[in-house]
Amino acid sequence: MNILVDVMGGDHGPNAVVEGCIQAINEAQGFDIKLIGDSSTIEKSLKEMGFSSPRLSVVHADEVITMEDSFKAVRTKKKSSMAIGLNMLKEKQGDVFLSAGNTGALLTGSTLILHRIKGVDRPALAAVVPSKEGGVCLIDCGANTVCKPLNLLQFGIMGSIYMEEVFGSKNPKVGLINNGTEDHKGTELVKESRKLLNNAPINFVGNIEGRDIAEGKIEVAVCDGFVGNILLKFYEGAGSFIKDSLKGIFTKSIFTKISALFLMENLKNFNKKLDYTEYGGAPLLGVNGKVMKTHGSSNAKTFKNAVLKAEKYGNSFVMEKICNQFLNMEVEVIEQDS
Amino acid sequence: MNILVDVMGGDHGPNAVVEGCIQAINEAQGFDIKLIGDSSTIEKSLKEMGFSSPRLSVVHADEVITMEDSFKAVRTKKKSSMAIGLNMLKEKQGDVFLSAGNTGALLTGSTLILHRIKGVDRPALAAVVPSKEGGVCLIDCGANTVCKPLNLLQFGIMGSIYMEEVFGSKNPKVGLINNGTEDHKGTELVKESRKLLNNAPINFVGNIEGRDIAEGKIEVAVCDGFVGNILLKFYEGAGSFIKDSLKGIFTKSIFTKISALFLMENLKNFNKKLDYTEYGGAPLLGVNGKVMKTHGSSNAKTFKNAVLKAEKYGNSFVMEKICNQFLNMEVEVIEQDS
Repeated sequence: MNILVDVMGGDHGPNAVVEGCIQAINEAQGFDIKLIGDSSTIEKSLKEMGFSSPRLSVVHADEVITMEDSFKAVRTKKKSSMAIGLNMLKEKQGDVFLSAGNTGALLTGSTLILHRIKGVDRPALAAVVPSKEGGVCLIDCGANTVCKPLNLLQFGIMGSIYMEEVFGSKNPKVGLINNGTEDHKGTELVKESRKLLNNAPINFVGNIEGRDIAEGKIEVAVCDGFVGNILLKFYEGAGSFIKDSLKGIFTKSIFTKISALFLMENLKNFNKKLDYTEYGGAPLLGVNGKVMKTHGSSNAKTFKNAVLKAEKYGNSFVMEKICNQFLNMEVEVIEQDS
Repeated sequence: MNILVDVMGGDHGPNAVVEGCIQAINEAQGFDIKLIGDSSTIEKSLKEMGFSSPRLSVVHADEVITMEDSFKAVRTKKKSSMAIGLNMLKEKQGDVFLSAGNTGALLTGSTLILHRIKGVDRPALAAVVPSKEGGVCLIDCGANTVCKPLNLLQFGIMGSIYMEEVFGSKNPKVGLINNGTEDHKGTELVKESRKLLNNAPINFVGNIEGRDIAEGKIEVAVCDGFVGNILLKFYEGAGSFIKDSLKGIFTKSIFTKISALFLMENLKNFNKKLDYTEYGGAPLLGVNGKVMKTHGSSNAKTFKNAVLKAEKYGNSFVMEKICNQFLNMEVEVIEQDS
């Protein structure tokens, strides 16, 4: 198992990425990492951290795709860490590619270089967020601002396969995010998508409301990338607000600080449960290659978790199952389109 | 100040509504309440609670609009508590009308009976949700599934007036919810709305992301009612999930229970800060009358808070300011439309 890592993406710079990769190697076995980026920067970083391991190698990249670059940047910056990583993935020099870089460039680059899986109309980003029941896959969480009903149908199928293969959900419940559970409610997109999802080979439970997501009524929540992106970031902001408020409780006086000591272990578990970063990266489902996006603002710990999630994703049969599923469905989809 | 209360709405039945009203009267001065609904049910409820006060009177209504009724139900059920309440508001027999009933029927009924404020294209529901900085007005949170740019412009203006007049925000910052802050990002609706909002007589700060809401970067967050409804309910579900997890921490052992005692006061404040129900009802802005919707699943405490918020809304000049604002803007809006 070879994990390809784009060292040059991410707001905290190459050091955080390198540190996260070292933590992942120290924590788990069974994979090697290829760090892709400016080799002198990476080697300096490794030297500073006093780390070397046969499991870690460096692949030099001359260019960097920045957050300001266009979504078509892999075309113009062919020597960037992102373009090199995607090409290495294509040529099977790695099993999975992880990047915290420019989302638009990563999505477009993945489709350009790896191509879509046959039958998939639009690839989608699938993030898993915490819920009462463990985790919910939010798909699409940002790849497609505007969607067709066919896209939402396919997101439901891909999300279901992902939760089954990577998170061990048995026959995951799939819900369609709407402003009400009733059939007559919602946008045209939702109404048409529901009809398609009703006939899909998944455990579709119908419309769900916003509250059903964190309450864990479903394991897969389907929406367009506009709504998904807003929800994902909203959850992040709400989580940060709540954690800050909670911190305030325990640091008010010496008594509350002592109380916190007794609760330490439980509080840690609580934080872990809520912690966004524990859930790691979001795969781009629907392309011929395992690409995982992690948060631009990822720190070393987030990156470590993303590497561990990438390893699970790399070891899974998600892509193969999506290929099979869409190969079987293709006839139906074409019939519906015509 | 007369607060008209629809006793027959709400999932917990008339008792919860009556109890909430009694709590509000016991807690605060300066208003009377007219309970509208089946008089024998209400009187039985009051008797059971052993409460009577000259500040509380009963208005009989023969019919009830249920959650299953159509959004046009005020037309067919003219003797319902909702229709009677809206008509009393129109005839100035009350200053504000509060209902936990069927949202669709309340919205349509309000527009039918009270009419829109001159210049307002679509009224909107404005809910205030907790944030790091106190509270954020989410508008529209469910009245309009599909919107035009003009609607989002008007939501921004109405939300700004509401936060200024009822929550005391000075020159509230207004943001447009989007899947990214950059100008090129978003749906056509968002892009067109931003142009209009840029020229609006409010403190418009541009696009905001989901995380900016709970982090309190703005005081007013503008979106269509589809996104707003999903976000509002999502927040509710996330809050409930987090509170449940937190409860688990403190009840694990005798030590953690003792620790909780030391933290009691802080925990109460924390819960209060997060508590959805503390923020009370959501006004329907843009109609000629002060209508406030509260949660269908409101318990007595939620209802009490909604009554107190309704009193503040009733005492405010929100409606008058919206009237003035739109009278001044009318010429511009018409020019833009043509």
